Amino acid sequence: MGTQWIDGGAVSGSGVDSVTGATRAPGPNREPTFVVPGRDEAAATRMEEFLSRTGRRPNVVVILMDDVGWGDFGCYGGGVAVGAPTPNVDRIAREGLLLTSCYSEPSCTPTRASIMTGRLPMRHGLLIPPMYGMPGGLSGEVTLPQLLSDAGYVTQAVGKWHMGENRESQPQHVGFDDFYGFLSVSDMYTEWRDPYFFPEVVYSEDRTEWVKNMPFNKCFVHATRDGELEEVEEVTVPVLSLLDDKWCAYSEQFIERMTGSADPWFLYHCTRGAHFDNYPHPDYLGRSPARHPYKDAIVELDAICGRLVAALERTGQLESTMVVISSDNGPEMETWPDSAFTPFRCAKGSTWEGGVRVPAIVSWPGMIQPGRSSDGLVHLLDLFATCLSMAGAPERIPTDRYIDAVDQLSFLLAADDREAVSNRKFQHYWLTSQFSALRVGEYKYMLSSISDDDTDVLNPGGFTGVVQRYGYGRLYNLYLDPKETRSYMIRKLVYIDAIIGEIGRHQATFREWPNKPAPASTG
Amino acid sequence: MGTQWIDGGAVSGSGVDSVTGATRAPGPNREPTFVVPGRDEAAATRMEEFLSRTGRRPNVVVILMDDVGWGDFGCYGGGVAVGAPTPNVDRIAREGLLLTSCYSEPSCTPTRASIMTGRLPMRHGLLIPPMYGMPGGLSGEVTLPQLLSDAGYVTQAVGKWHMGENRESQPQHVGFDDFYGFLSVSDMYTEWRDPYFFPEVVYSEDRTEWVKNMPFNKCFVHATRDGELEEVEEVTVPVLSLLDDKWCAYSEQFIERMTGSADPWFLYHCTRGAHFDNYPHPDYLGRSPARHPYKDAIVELDAICGRLVAALERTGQLESTMVVISSDNGPEMETWPDSAFTPFRCAKGSTWEGGVRVPAIVSWPGMIQPGRSSDGLVHLLDLFATCLSMAGAPERIPTDRYIDAVDQLSFLLAADDREAVSNRKFQHYWLTSQFSALRVGEYKYMLSSISDDDTDVLNPGGFTGVVQRYGYGRLYNLYLDPKETRSYMIRKLVYIDAIIGEIGRHQATFREWPNKPAPASTG
Repeated sequence: MGTQWIDGGAVSGSGVDSVTGATRAPGPNREPTFVVPGRDEAAATRMEEFLSRTGRRPNVVVILMDDVGWGDFGCYGGGVAVGAPTPNVDRIAREGLLLTSCYSEPSCTPTRASIMTGRLPMRHGLLIPPMYGMPGGLSGEVTLPQLLSDAGYVTQAVGKWHMGENRESQPQHVGFDDFYGFLSVSDMYTEWRDPYFFPEVVYSEDRTEWVKNMPFNKCFVHATRDGELEEVEEVTVPVLSLLDDKWCAYSEQFIERMTGSADPWFLYHCTRGAHFDNYPHPDYLGRSPARHPYKDAIVELDAICGRLVAALERTGQLESTMVVISSDNGPEMETWPDSAFTPFRCAKGSTWEGGVRVPAIVSWPGMIQPGRSSDGLVHLLDLFATCLSMAGAPERIPTDRYIDAVDQLSFLLAADDREAVSNRKFQHYWLTSQFSALRVGEYKYMLSSISDDDTDVLNPGGFTGVVQRYGYGRLYNLYLDPKETRSYMIRKLVYIDAIIGEIGRHQATFREWPNKPAPASTG
Repeated sequence: MGTQWIDGGAVSGSGVDSVTGATRAPGPNREPTFVVPGRDEAAATRMEEFLSRTGRRPNVVVILMDDVGWGDFGCYGGGVAVGAPTPNVDRIAREGLLLTSCYSEPSCTPTRASIMTGRLPMRHGLLIPPMYGMPGGLSGEVTLPQLLSDAGYVTQAVGKWHMGENRESQPQHVGFDDFYGFLSVSDMYTEWRDPYFFPEVVYSEDRTEWVKNMPFNKCFVHATRDGELEEVEEVTVPVLSLLDDKWCAYSEQFIERMTGSADPWFLYHCTRGAHFDNYPHPDYLGRSPARHPYKDAIVELDAICGRLVAALERTGQLESTMVVISSDNGPEMETWPDSAFTPFRCAKGSTWEGGVRVPAIVSWPGMIQPGRSSDGLVHLLDLFATCLSMAGAPERIPTDRYIDAVDQLSFLLAADDREAVSNRKFQHYWLTSQFSALRVGEYKYMLSSISDDDTDVLNPGGFTGVVQRYGYGRLYNLYLDPKETRSYMIRKLVYIDAIIGEIGRHQATFREWPNKPAPASTG
């Protein structure tokens, strides 16, 4: 739609242009990126204007929800249609940029650690979520909060962590000035207390010992940089119901405290909701039209987004802050009906679009054009390079390891909403340690995936499935076939060579650059 | 969410409240409707204000698209996400009401005839689309345009008709003052000319005779009330490419001509697109990011919606006109990739949500609250009673036959967007002559349907499927399970008696009121 590549050839971001369009990479350890002529320069000019107007670098708020689906919010076709209106998120989307092809990893921890490191799970080693004190964690990686901190940012983490409970992987040891939240994942704290899910434990003192002695921290905690954890409160079921409200209040206080701050700041706010099992806050119990705990949680999460943005507005920081709202993976369908909605195929745990395509809204009044929507490829780990670009510190990005993050700042600030492509050319899908698929433009070439049957309750996809390999690969056109039901490969052989070439380049990066080995138990 | 039923009991529009909520019916031949206290009265007051302000009744524009899916427009989660931005439709939605549970019949003609008559196909007899001159049509029914005409409206039909080619069923004989369009359906005019689809005809003079002698009109035509058809132009493939543009221009001229009209008017504008096979207008060829004929057609249809609304605005008629944008059924998946997108299960030809849940946007600046979205149940045939209510002529609705249409005017004009329920209590699903399912609130109870396998290219659902009957019925919660994969019945037996009771009431109406028998060949 009018976008010219640097080679002056093709004119759009889809199909063959996306495969052959000219690219450049910021360094040998970095991804090739699309080059839209003039876009980087225009963004640089706007950032200079911002700096001279405000005298400092912009703040960043990342609101990362848990297991919330692409289809949950009204602005993605959900909202009232699925029994949970989301007026706040919808409004924030209208005031900013709605991304329709933003990707996570297939599950929680891999996604979060990829945001923190700008690297894919096969590089940072967190391939699956550590449960009940399992080993593994962020330690040894160079993290976004540490680099932002080095660049002068105040760094705050609130809510769910789940990137290792060991001391050296805790948030206050990997770059955050302050942390208020829990270290693991919602159900770890409660399901063994709930007679519906763990009757054998709840009704047996002997078996309770089994869980009580597990080496995971059962409290939500507070910590300050380089310090030790202080336990705030044991996470029982009633306590869990209140966590999102308490965490939101903590973040509101942080935002209030930062009013007029000379230093820019980074708030990483990770909600408890809407991870199974949802026990709604009393104020939200039955508040959703669906009258279901999952949907009540969505209504509360929507209100929390509204509260955090209102705090920015109230303190005069709205126009100096980029707000990102997203989720860590697709719907967890094994826990239905306590589950999200995606229009796409399969679920959390898979590399079908339903597993990894997440809602993502980016708002920054005055800098990001309101009412924009884009199908440009974005991976949540792009936040790593993008935030460092905003911080004026791209040179802090490590050069001793491969970095998958693409700097998307010039795409986010683009004035022309017809610029359909982001700065990211390729989306690489990994199913834990198995390379699964490549997306370029609207084409997704799949070499392996996890089986699913969306109409079968016994095999709803996600973690339940069986890993499959496709001999010749499958090629889906995600515009014509968003549900990935019809392989189009035999009619598009023209693309195969370019696609295989990129997969080869990608695989070579794992041989050419050092990666952190995964702990033996998570292989 | 604050809505009180007339019995003062339940407080919302979902679950058990929807089953047991108080209702009333305007007459013995009419549907029971929800009663939201004060809503009818508030709407009456607003209509009186409108009448005294403008001195006349409001106009109505119905833009009915062909085979366009619930998920095609950006405001339903489509747009850029599926390779075809729809900025005009999205804007019109933001300026008005977006309906998320609006229903059609499973295919084209049944839906259209239901809008015209306010009656289900089993009453008006048009159970399937008449193809290549098949018998059957609207004749003998009391039609919306005729009743509006009797109430003083100027009535104009433009575009696709497809409710009978026989003289007495043609638009100018069933209530329209003027008609400019074609009588059948897009592919009837072209597929036998296209060597890709009919090589045996296109390359054989003998076989061409077979089609040439078929008794269907191969032109697009013009007619005025009670007159004979004038043939405008034979619909060849190149002519077909231009039809939507020409038809839009005709409707624009009609709107211009109506400027300052003392009489209110009704424009029924039915697009050619995006029915297979789409041969894009030259101006739109390759214009969509998807670069596919279907998506190019969507981009053109979006522009046409923008043009028609712009004509209303330019002529000062925007605030005196209700605009409805919808589609006649779900995606036709047997013609993939020339197909729409729905997030729901199955496709056109079925009673799964994918077959019958259609996009529907209603805009009337100054009267319909902007930015509203509602999951209230609406059937497109409700336009029959709603338009007659707007025309101040509800007494013209026939009393000698059963009318399924519900007057939704007070729902459309509701000031409070938390009023989740429409005036319609039940959605009845019919699969041609087979009763299929009932929806009340978020629950859909299914007794029979058509088989599908959404991941199987050979059986994509829709017309290809096999009719199945479910012994005990299936109950889907469409909020928790929008894709209809998990029958919830065994946990919701409390609703079954009320649901079965309503099915019995519905079935009795077919015994108690006369219906038009279907022609033998369409049984």
